[in-house]
Amino acid sequence: MTEHIQFSPEKDALVLLDQRYLPTREEWFVCKTVADICEALVVMVVRGAPAIGVTAAYGCYLAAREVQASGVADWKGALSAKLEQVASARPTAVNLRWAVRLMQGEWNKRPEFSLDDLCAFWLQKAKTVHAEDIATCMAIGAAGADLIDDGDTVLTHCNAGALATAGYGTALAPIRAAVAQGKKVRVIADETRPFLQGARLTAYELHKDGIPVTVACDNACALLMQRGLVQKVIVGADRIAANGDAANKIGTFGVALIAKEFGVPFYVAAPVSTIDPETADGSLIPIEDRTPREVTHVGQTQITPDGVPVYNFAFDVTPNRLIRGIITERGVLAAPYTEAIAKLFK
Amino acid sequence: MTEHIQFSPEKDALVLLDQRYLPTREEWFVCKTVADICEALVVMVVRGAPAIGVTAAYGCYLAAREVQASGVADWKGALSAKLEQVASARPTAVNLRWAVRLMQGEWNKRPEFSLDDLCAFWLQKAKTVHAEDIATCMAIGAAGADLIDDGDTVLTHCNAGALATAGYGTALAPIRAAVAQGKKVRVIADETRPFLQGARLTAYELHKDGIPVTVACDNACALLMQRGLVQKVIVGADRIAANGDAANKIGTFGVALIAKEFGVPFYVAAPVSTIDPETADGSLIPIEDRTPREVTHVGQTQITPDGVPVYNFAFDVTPNRLIRGIITERGVLAAPYTEAIAKLFK
Repeated sequence: MTEHIQFSPEKDALVLLDQRYLPTREEWFVCKTVADICEALVVMVVRGAPAIGVTAAYGCYLAAREVQASGVADWKGALSAKLEQVASARPTAVNLRWAVRLMQGEWNKRPEFSLDDLCAFWLQKAKTVHAEDIATCMAIGAAGADLIDDGDTVLTHCNAGALATAGYGTALAPIRAAVAQGKKVRVIADETRPFLQGARLTAYELHKDGIPVTVACDNACALLMQRGLVQKVIVGADRIAANGDAANKIGTFGVALIAKEFGVPFYVAAPVSTIDPETADGSLIPIEDRTPREVTHVGQTQITPDGVPVYNFAFDVTPNRLIRGIITERGVLAAPYTEAIAKLFK
Repeated sequence: MTEHIQFSPEKDALVLLDQRYLPTREEWFVCKTVADICEALVVMVVRGAPAIGVTAAYGCYLAAREVQASGVADWKGALSAKLEQVASARPTAVNLRWAVRLMQGEWNKRPEFSLDDLCAFWLQKAKTVHAEDIATCMAIGAAGADLIDDGDTVLTHCNAGALATAGYGTALAPIRAAVAQGKKVRVIADETRPFLQGARLTAYELHKDGIPVTVACDNACALLMQRGLVQKVIVGADRIAANGDAANKIGTFGVALIAKEFGVPFYVAAPVSTIDPETADGSLIPIEDRTPREVTHVGQTQITPDGVPVYNFAFDVTPNRLIRGIITERGVLAAPYTEAIAKLFK
């Protein structure tokens, strides 16, 4: 799997595989400024909660470099404003704020730092966040691999794979780990309208890595489960509340309800950084409402009539009662989640 | 609403609004032969169980004209073979076989008919089937209008509207009738991947007729219901078994499960001809498996990687227990459906 998030010392820039053009074209998007980072986040050059976090960490470094280049006197004020821009590029994923706060916290601990010091320190820190994310994903894989049996077909929604993280994935991590153990595992990738992360990204990365994957329209879920074609569901999360309610790509809640109907175990896989102990339950998670164009057009093809409004909520929240387990780098959490999560953050 | 199924005496042909190009282009597809009719059915120039039935009735006439033009000696054998071609163009919709059998039955009653006689008779008969379908739809509307309250938002899946029938629609008929009664009704059209009948067709015809419609990705269903944005669900059907299990566009079953979760009443609207008393239950309804290209591409945009297989089952079956009522031209059937349907066919 190509590393899709790369820091280029030559360009002094973050270079991202532009996921808007996958699976048919591999193009790269170069971020040199905070505006570039925000654009990459908003238009979804890069997406997926952990990948957003890693991108935001590099974004803090680029913010510092930009302030440095501007030569502004109140560099601390200017930098804080730019960090706020990065932190608010998208509302749902907690990892975005988590990464910016982490970088800010490291800065706060070092008030003596000059801007030059901070630039050098933050680049290193961003690289650490990057490397740790891959390590975290591999730990999620190790924790979740035993949940998958030899011969299983696992359905996943959206892309919580290598392309949603620094590498290896969250929902796809237990699958990769189970395959590494020698188990035969097949994947059904929900295409995941409107942005088609499943059809475009999950299918792309699994196919590239030789793991058998079949794409299905989101609509096929109930029929596939009724026919016994799905043994497990594993999805990622953009934010998990203190009670275990999990925000993930729109449609996940429906998959969870259907899985319950057919007795198919439904798991959420996410790093602990996706759990937001400050959000008591799922009703408090803000749901991003995105541009209508993602629904009205696919590529250049217009699929809705002019003048007809659309809904484009990007996420929904799966209630904790539908979740069999939350697979983290620190093990698999089981209900009651309020206690399990409180214990984790003690 | 433009009549989308028209018989042209000048062309001696059935002229169909080509639904593949809606909502952006209004093009017409001319059927002069059985091959044309079969192509129109297979590639879905025309779709929707009742519209398929009307098309097939005209198809029988065109089959007779084609045999007449060929001058073949065994015209009865040749014609029977062509009728079989029409009847088997698509497997799930019972209306296709229903229409062909109806035409055959009328022929069987008149063994003295010459081929010339039969041509003239069948053209008239096809026009009757056409007119009766519109009358049936209006009766479905009258039967179902009272189920819709002033201020309701009704969610529908796929297109069971004017474009799926000779006119007026099945699932959309009660909505049209309620609007005619002066009720304020809004519609949410599931976009209905992969063929996008909701985004392209339901939105097109309702918008054209001034009924407020919003398009949502199929994935939004659970969130919209959770937010209280949906008061009723009404869908069409391609075949209803003797016990009330209803085959309809892929994804309908999932909508029904989600509606049950949120206590939203779920109705099926269909003419009695869609009920197949010979099919005991839904497990016996054949499910069409269509070309992968409908999933892999939208217009010219490829959305899945080369070499990745897809599922493209066109229908699923909603179990009778999830259906609050079946709205027909002869009234609203309620559970237990086996009895209600047996009574209807007595």
